[in-house]
Amino acid sequence: MAGTDRTRMSRVFGENAPAIVLVRPQLAENIGMVARAMLNCGLTALRLVAPREDWLAEKAIASASGADGLLREARFFETTEAAIADINRVYATTARRRDMIKRVLTPRGAAERLRTQVAAGERCAVMFGPERTGLSNDDVALADAIVEVPLNPAYCSLNLAQAVLLLGYEWYQAGDATPAEQLVTNDTQPATRGELLGFFDHLERELDDCGFLRNAAKRPGMVRNLRNLFERADLTEQEIRTLHGVVKELRHGRVERAQPLPVGVVQPLSVGVVEDGAG
Amino acid sequence: MAGTDRTRMSRVFGENAPAIVLVRPQLAENIGMVARAMLNCGLTALRLVAPREDWLAEKAIASASGADGLLREARFFETTEAAIADINRVYATTARRRDMIKRVLTPRGAAERLRTQVAAGERCAVMFGPERTGLSNDDVALADAIVEVPLNPAYCSLNLAQAVLLLGYEWYQAGDATPAEQLVTNDTQPATRGELLGFFDHLERELDDCGFLRNAAKRPGMVRNLRNLFERADLTEQEIRTLHGVVKELRHGRVERAQPLPVGVVQPLSVGVVEDGAG
Repeated sequence: MAGTDRTRMSRVFGENAPAIVLVRPQLAENIGMVARAMLNCGLTALRLVAPREDWLAEKAIASASGADGLLREARFFETTEAAIADINRVYATTARRRDMIKRVLTPRGAAERLRTQVAAGERCAVMFGPERTGLSNDDVALADAIVEVPLNPAYCSLNLAQAVLLLGYEWYQAGDATPAEQLVTNDTQPATRGELLGFFDHLERELDDCGFLRNAAKRPGMVRNLRNLFERADLTEQEIRTLHGVVKELRHGRVERAQPLPVGVVQPLSVGVVEDGAG
Repeated sequence: MAGTDRTRMSRVFGENAPAIVLVRPQLAENIGMVARAMLNCGLTALRLVAPREDWLAEKAIASASGADGLLREARFFETTEAAIADINRVYATTARRRDMIKRVLTPRGAAERLRTQVAAGERCAVMFGPERTGLSNDDVALADAIVEVPLNPAYCSLNLAQAVLLLGYEWYQAGDATPAEQLVTNDTQPATRGELLGFFDHLERELDDCGFLRNAAKRPGMVRNLRNLFERADLTEQEIRTLHGVVKELRHGRVERAQPLPVGVVQPLSVGVVEDGAG
């Protein structure tokens, strides 16, 4: 990511998005992977407290996979205190419970707070400790609250970039309006009830005609079951046209329009909009 | 993780948790990292469709970081169709929108559905495609629905293990009851209002005595501000005792209990429970 992208990110996400503070990270490769995870989530402000390796080393740039602009703009500090001096709200991520009386948030709970605080103009940061040990208790005591990720208690070790990803993911989701579920119909539209009923008419007429619905006692239930099956599919207008064609050709085979219809075949009402099959 | 742990996981999380299906994964290292991310989230059933490398190679075991039990119990399939033949509900993860009319879920939306379906006894799976290309359109067409992770649209590429982690994370959260926010007080208790009021009495008496609250007009407001400050801290009974000691020693210095109190010093009512300071 070039510097210009950073500017674009800032425009898109605002300068006020939380800073990620890596306290004494050990491996340059991990710093690069953190940059990648941050950019995935629209976070761009990286602060480094006394990293052991050079965060602009080749392996850091490589593992950033294009998010190396964040590494180039990362800010270096000698101490955790210096890194958070201008910050209003500090969150400390921990993997194990500390012997401290402190508010403990889930990533989702922290993300909600962060959104509220950032919206109020507060400067926020989330701190992550060294890979092997996590944050020291003294560093944790500098924070307003602890963030702990609820995970399999029998196996909850996350690597540094994964921990940043989960926090960043929740930050992003807390500001994202994507519906939990949507039907993507691209350039077609959901069918109207009239189009659906037109298909039911066609299907049931052909099924009457071929004898599939010959049992009068069972006919109403069978019709309802078939209608329900197609109702559940949330059909589009395009798919209704395709299904008209499927029924027509299953019943009558490929019919050239110029030819007369075979004796006994009822011309479907909607033949004008029937899509040609693949045959 | 040894085979016995797998059994333990199964007991804890149920055999019915969704399977993760990696379709034509390229790198053994990534399969190992996926196993680690799965175990973080309590998922243990890994299915592999035609992986390019050996999923029990040394680098796979190493990158699994102790979750290699999942690799050893992974199931191999030649085709995607074979891998999902016994599954009732299949979700396909994609990074880019496909030209298909299909339901698209967020990871959170998918996790809610998965919990409901698993609870109803349905067998579920989430499919992930090869690292470089993602799932083929034909593989996506085998799924009930698509899962897309809402992320920075300018930079949304996730590596395979990170994609599995985010899906698994949402699966875990959907079944987890950790409160979004809690005050961890360890072996002490939140203070009662009586303990808090006892501290306010002590503090304000000493502040009257030393002259800090001498301005009668401002006194009520200053008292309210001080009370609010301590109210916000959600103090524990232990901390109330500490604060009694802090006020006492700031005002009078270290006082040996055996000695007579200095002239003019009001003995705090709660001296019997005052914790000794560090001095």
